[in-house]
Amino acid sequence: MMKFTKMHGLGNSYIYINLFEESLKEEDLSELAIELSDKNTGIGSDGMILIGPSNNQDIQMRVFNADGSEAKNCGNGLRCVAKLAFEKNLVIKKEFTVETLGGPVKASVELSEDGQQVKLISVDMGPPRLLKKDVPMEGKPDSKTIEEAVEVSGTTYYMTALSMGNPHAVFFVDEIETAPVERVGPILEKHNMFPESANIEFVEMAAEGNMHFRVWERGSGVTQACGTGACAAVAAAILTGRAQKDIDVTVHLLGGDLRIRWEEDGNIWMTGPAEIICEGVYIRKEQRK
Amino acid sequence: MMKFTKMHGLGNSYIYINLFEESLKEEDLSELAIELSDKNTGIGSDGMILIGPSNNQDIQMRVFNADGSEAKNCGNGLRCVAKLAFEKNLVIKKEFTVETLGGPVKASVELSEDGQQVKLISVDMGPPRLLKKDVPMEGKPDSKTIEEAVEVSGTTYYMTALSMGNPHAVFFVDEIETAPVERVGPILEKHNMFPESANIEFVEMAAEGNMHFRVWERGSGVTQACGTGACAAVAAAILTGRAQKDIDVTVHLLGGDLRIRWEEDGNIWMTGPAEIICEGVYIRKEQRK
Repeated sequence: MMKFTKMHGLGNSYIYINLFEESLKEEDLSELAIELSDKNTGIGSDGMILIGPSNNQDIQMRVFNADGSEAKNCGNGLRCVAKLAFEKNLVIKKEFTVETLGGPVKASVELSEDGQQVKLISVDMGPPRLLKKDVPMEGKPDSKTIEEAVEVSGTTYYMTALSMGNPHAVFFVDEIETAPVERVGPILEKHNMFPESANIEFVEMAAEGNMHFRVWERGSGVTQACGTGACAAVAAAILTGRAQKDIDVTVHLLGGDLRIRWEEDGNIWMTGPAEIICEGVYIRKEQRK
Repeated sequence: MMKFTKMHGLGNSYIYINLFEESLKEEDLSELAIELSDKNTGIGSDGMILIGPSNNQDIQMRVFNADGSEAKNCGNGLRCVAKLAFEKNLVIKKEFTVETLGGPVKASVELSEDGQQVKLISVDMGPPRLLKKDVPMEGKPDSKTIEEAVEVSGTTYYMTALSMGNPHAVFFVDEIETAPVERVGPILEKHNMFPESANIEFVEMAAEGNMHFRVWERGSGVTQACGTGACAAVAAAILTGRAQKDIDVTVHLLGGDLRIRWEEDGNIWMTGPAEIICEGVYIRKEQRK
């Protein structure tokens, strides 16, 4: 029997295990993530996230995908970790640091009026990296990709590409409803200019400080939300003069809204919700016999 | 907050709600089933099953699919209901009756050696219905379909068709590994001889009392297990002289094994496992704000 919490951030769901009260063996983690994520014989999720003590930050998070591989970080997961850590008193400050495989990350929580619940969570998503060699992209290694023409099936699109730890290509469109996400997304995702493929985002700028956003995620296709993609979209809007640094942009994704701000000091902050779906005890497969 | 148990029978998973301790509004049930079944913002399952008091049987079960529609019955779900009802002391006899939308059903449980857990569950799946009009199938309404030739893409297959409350067509093959489940399944499923479509099963008879089984489920494609399909396969084996009434046949499905017996009195009994995956409290969407 193992205690768990299932949470989601804009529809990106994970099973959270609190290592302050559960102990797991390192060699079991990959298998456990696969087992828990299976909708048929496990709980069902996009993966497993462990919250535990850290040597040099306030708390540690480790992210395991549904296929058992360990991920560096996860923006939607980070917001859930921050909410859970604060509500379970694993941290006592409203601003704290989280150790991830991708490095330390700052998080801060906003409470509900009664002070009982975490309503919104802001996390530091780091700086965007703009050089082609960092995206990575083919072409001059030290140049940037800003409104660069790319042709797909006879139509020319203008692309701004950057890395938020993973590669993104952003396309501004006049109407989000007619954006060719499913038609052009898969072609651009695997275009040979992206040696590691890319996440493809379509963005419609809306009333001041707002944008509509659709994403074709590398390896996943159309998804409800992509935290790093929303950050990339706001960075692209600022790089092309459509928005400004130090001012919040609200990104409307299929799964809900995120508030993104590229700070003058270089880092991008993402603010959004996280929800607890259920909590309980999980019976591991080998214990069910 | 609502208590729940997630269980599965051969990979067919449902969220079980015990109406002896939770009260739900009739008008919420469809929406709740949809909400719970969603892997992203709910728990993730094939649907929701309610266990409650019955006026004329020992217990009542109601099955809601992931799309919110109510089903008449569910063989894999029935085994889970029987296990949960006995282990939670909602029934005190080892043999009891369950009220379903499809009529009353008998169930009986076998306990583990220490008497603490239900290890196997047998449920009465009713009699097979053999007439074409009952499957339903095109053709002479009062005739049966036993080893009837059907041609698909130039190859002739021999089909035995019957209803277990839903339509099944069974094909015996020499080797289950090479059975054309994904190639022929979808063509036969929607063949115009089946006005309500059909579940398509491929069966290899194995060492005495055993068969290998693969299914193309109506509306779902290849699945891990189909309880009524396993019953149909054993009935077809008996109808074609490959097995006998009153003797158990063990059916090996992708998701695990089922023991099936067609009794001389006409009804088919199915025996198999059921597992509790997790238990806990679920926070409904409207309460998460």
